[in-house]
Amino acid sequence: MQNSPVNFAEKFSKFNDLWSPKVIAEMNNYQFKLAKVEGEFVWHEHPDTDEVFIVLEGQLDIELRDKTVTLHEGEMFVVPKGVEHKPVAKSECKIMLVEPKGVVNTGDSGGELTAETDVWI
Amino acid sequence: MQNSPVNFAEKFSKFNDLWSPKVIAEMNNYQFKLAKVEGEFVWHEHPDTDEVFIVLEGQLDIELRDKTVTLHEGEMFVVPKGVEHKPVAKSECKIMLVEPKGVVNTGDSGGELTAETDVWI
Repeated sequence: MQNSPVNFAEKFSKFNDLWSPKVIAEMNNYQFKLAKVEGEFVWHEHPDTDEVFIVLEGQLDIELRDKTVTLHEGEMFVVPKGVEHKPVAKSECKIMLVEPKGVVNTGDSGGELTAETDVWI
Repeated sequence: MQNSPVNFAEKFSKFNDLWSPKVIAEMNNYQFKLAKVEGEFVWHEHPDTDEVFIVLEGQLDIELRDKTVTLHEGEMFVVPKGVEHKPVAKSECKIMLVEPKGVVNTGDSGGELTAETDVWI
């Protein structure tokens, strides 16, 4: 058992790299990850899973092909599987992601922003 | 697709019943639920799934048989499957739960605090 509460602020204080999700908890085969993001990510999709974005601080735009969903602190959005999306943050934004273990941040697109999976903090 | 951002504060403004989780989003076969809690819940376990508690406002004590985990705003805890727990909130507390669709709030214990599942708000 993960024995103690997970404090988001404490976890965020431990890293500063952008677009590189860190695992903070696991439930069944799902992982909760924190990330700091700023600037433009890449267009990608996850063909096999939905993906949850929760904004804990700042503002995140999730560009979809037909519209942009803007998330503020205390808001979440589920990107359905197979739907292309591009996260963009005009200034630094702190987010939580929820998705199955093993999901790669750049999905089917790869590229230099691809982060290692299953990195706990 | 759930088309717009889900705002926690806006969702919380729509209900006041205690210990009665409301679904606000679905990812694959998992649901994100909000609940207002105050007082003592019942001892129960979920034999088939872990359960995530995230405190959005206030303080929640999760009593386990061998200790108590206290969660404040911005903290989460995963109760492993099969582990008996009893949530207690000394004053009103706003939480988010994440668990598979169909999970009953009182688990294997039943009783008068058992809430209907799959109630969206």
